Amino acid sequence: MNLQLQDSDEFDLINTCFKNKAKQRQDVLIGIGDDAAFMNASSPFLAMAVDTLVEGVHFLPNANPADIGYKSLAVNLSDLAAVGAEPAWMLLALTMPTPDKIWTEKFSAGLFELAEQFNVQLIGGDTTRGPLTVTVQVTGYLPSAEVAIARRGAKVGDKIYVSGTLGDAGLGLAVAKGNGEFLSSEDKQYVLQRLHRPTPRVNVGMALRGIASSAIDISDGLLVDIGHLLAANQVGARIDADKLPLSSALNDSLVENEAKKLALTAGDDYELCFTVPANKESLMLARLEEKKVASYCIGEIIAKTGIEITHFSGELSSQGFKHW
Amino acid sequence: MNLQLQDSDEFDLINTCFKNKAKQRQDVLIGIGDDAAFMNASSPFLAMAVDTLVEGVHFLPNANPADIGYKSLAVNLSDLAAVGAEPAWMLLALTMPTPDKIWTEKFSAGLFELAEQFNVQLIGGDTTRGPLTVTVQVTGYLPSAEVAIARRGAKVGDKIYVSGTLGDAGLGLAVAKGNGEFLSSEDKQYVLQRLHRPTPRVNVGMALRGIASSAIDISDGLLVDIGHLLAANQVGARIDADKLPLSSALNDSLVENEAKKLALTAGDDYELCFTVPANKESLMLARLEEKKVASYCIGEIIAKTGIEITHFSGELSSQGFKHW
Repeated sequence: MNLQLQDSDEFDLINTCFKNKAKQRQDVLIGIGDDAAFMNASSPFLAMAVDTLVEGVHFLPNANPADIGYKSLAVNLSDLAAVGAEPAWMLLALTMPTPDKIWTEKFSAGLFELAEQFNVQLIGGDTTRGPLTVTVQVTGYLPSAEVAIARRGAKVGDKIYVSGTLGDAGLGLAVAKGNGEFLSSEDKQYVLQRLHRPTPRVNVGMALRGIASSAIDISDGLLVDIGHLLAANQVGARIDADKLPLSSALNDSLVENEAKKLALTAGDDYELCFTVPANKESLMLARLEEKKVASYCIGEIIAKTGIEITHFSGELSSQGFKHW
Repeated sequence: MNLQLQDSDEFDLINTCFKNKAKQRQDVLIGIGDDAAFMNASSPFLAMAVDTLVEGVHFLPNANPADIGYKSLAVNLSDLAAVGAEPAWMLLALTMPTPDKIWTEKFSAGLFELAEQFNVQLIGGDTTRGPLTVTVQVTGYLPSAEVAIARRGAKVGDKIYVSGTLGDAGLGLAVAKGNGEFLSSEDKQYVLQRLHRPTPRVNVGMALRGIASSAIDISDGLLVDIGHLLAANQVGARIDADKLPLSSALNDSLVENEAKKLALTAGDDYELCFTVPANKESLMLARLEEKKVASYCIGEIIAKTGIEITHFSGELSSQGFKHW
């Protein structure tokens, strides 16, 4: 008996949409197409993270596939940013109801658009049938063990900073759900961009190596995420709501207290929240200015646990976005 | 305003079911609980793979959570085995409809049972709400670039081997679906074990370093997977169906041709299929015997593309398990 085997739809999809588009890094010896990818790491100090986006939970069913591709990598690069790592490789586990080539082409375009910016190579993955779910795993480098930034490390008296305006993605979600009639079209576009294509603050994280005493990325909302950071250090925080950086989109369209509330609680902005000892603050500011990246001091670490918020009088019933 | 933040269900679940159970490897500097895990790799030569199991596609809705945990890691370690890597770390992306602690406890027990065997540390992950989907990503070491095994490398005249009996998981699937009335209870138990708890052939892969000319793990069925291997090398194969290793469970319960057919086409066995040049065959056999692992020669690589099967007279309509 003689058999001529044909490539399955899966292989065709992988070749067309992913394999032939993956850039080639020097440290990747074997990329897509083997059972496992094979690398020759240029530093032994590696940071690794994984994040999943689920249809109907992390993105709306009608979301643009290119945005989903972009964001699935962005949220992972944001995790690398929080520890100060330089991105290198990604693996993609893509689950979809049917092998939809048009959808996957668009998804892939968004994914590679961001991957190009940060010199990330897609080294492999898995495509499976099932409800639309995107899991990306990333690996990045650190030059030494000493300069890695962790959640643990914040001390009483450290200043608390964030890397950009907060609440934009939360407002973007309202717009995406059709509740944005009170925004100008320019503001709409801005907040939707912030929601769908968050900028991973890789440059900030790398500039903070050896300077920040702790860091976390704001995925679930400032209060929730800073809560994790505080818990890891058994300290508290005093936050001045007047110092929260707010975009003109927020200031234009919401009353002050509502804008502050969104900045405190809304998720998906993927800015970094980090702490810096007072004696390193000027070094940090100089370093960030040199890299042309913004930073905003919003408060300080205090001994008393919990979060003390000044200049804010509203209710905070929400604890930000929850996975469940 | 003062806030005291509480841990979410997600954090509770992670701490109870995963964080407190993860073993501690020397090469992991920061494990579960930060934005990214941080490692100090003991070799720059790294192999990485990712695989997803979806409810209703890769496991039945009523499957034992411990088996799902075990298998989600096993299929990944099988990928590392195929390239000859020694497993080190895993990341887990777990999507489930609700944070079910009892289910997750059981899942975690199965996952860690296998992780312990292969000295694999869970270094981080992501838990999200959505349809039950398990994605595991693994990283392993190789001592040098030269000894890695790839799909590419098989040459005409190389012998084709497999690492164990084939078709068992396929028969196990029939039993799991209630079609196993013709099997003895001992055989049933054996094939269900083969389906739910496949043994990743890590020891085989490591023993084949520098010897095998190519390898692939058999996840989708021998013919489909060897087809990928042949395509990567633009060669063909001659397979002697009389040489296919068959368990007594298959021999007891199926007529000869049906047993051979299952061995040729059924997926999920996670045995390795590998090729070895004739002049390294005796070295290979000695190495595998020393490690006390089995191997079976089933054919050889030929110049003519396609697969020539001798001693088999049945129909082969199926091309094995497909993801789509």
